[in-house]
Amino acid sequence: MTCPSATQDRYPYQNEPIWSRSEKTVARTAFDAALKRELQEIMQEAKRMANQISRPADLWDLEHYLTQRRKEIDRKYEYKYSQLTHVFGRLLHEQRLCEEELRGLREDKLKLIRSFATFLSEDAA
Amino acid sequence: MTCPSATQDRYPYQNEPIWSRSEKTVARTAFDAALKRELQEIMQEAKRMANQISRPADLWDLEHYLTQRRKEIDRKYEYKYSQLTHVFGRLLHEQRLCEEELRGLREDKLKLIRSFATFLSEDAA
Repeated sequence: MTCPSATQDRYPYQNEPIWSRSEKTVARTAFDAALKRELQEIMQEAKRMANQISRPADLWDLEHYLTQRRKEIDRKYEYKYSQLTHVFGRLLHEQRLCEEELRGLREDKLKLIRSFATFLSEDAA
Repeated sequence: MTCPSATQDRYPYQNEPIWSRSEKTVARTAFDAALKRELQEIMQEAKRMANQISRPADLWDLEHYLTQRRKEIDRKYEYKYSQLTHVFGRLLHEQRLCEEELRGLREDKLKLIRSFATFLSEDAA
């Protein structure tokens, strides 16, 4: 008969890295900076597209662009510690974040982040 | 036993006005002109909103505005002869069309159009 220990069922789940307080600060700063940059980029692109509107179809192209980017942002920027290595891996792969911004994270996390970034790059190749 | 005549079941349905060829021309021109004006207005407003984007929430306000207007346009501009008196009545009520543009329609249709415009005005009061 197996009798799992109480700690085994509690957070953090098995194989999930523990984030120290200082790591959480680094993570939050890097996450917010990447999100801010991406939103700035969308703001610039929306202004550019709007300026070039000359026919009704351009309006609905802009609407479609905004809807897609909003959904993408919602999907991509999920601030959960259980997801962060994937989130940062994707941002690294998309060159929306540089490793320098992750300085202060432990090597186990950096390894997971790099590994996911590499996987995405290979997957896209 | 009732035996409806063949013509009764065919288009035009009972009480539905028949549109002559010249009336169809007037209707199409008025319809297209109103739609064009409304789309121009949306294009101007979208450009204005985009120019004023300064924070991410402004992006999603613009997206919401475009989605709402697209749905409204789809709902409002239905070019079916069975619906046209309602369509023109609404455009008249919204002052997106003036009666002058409907010159050439028969009085039975103008009466229906004015009547629907009046109903909407009273309903909104």
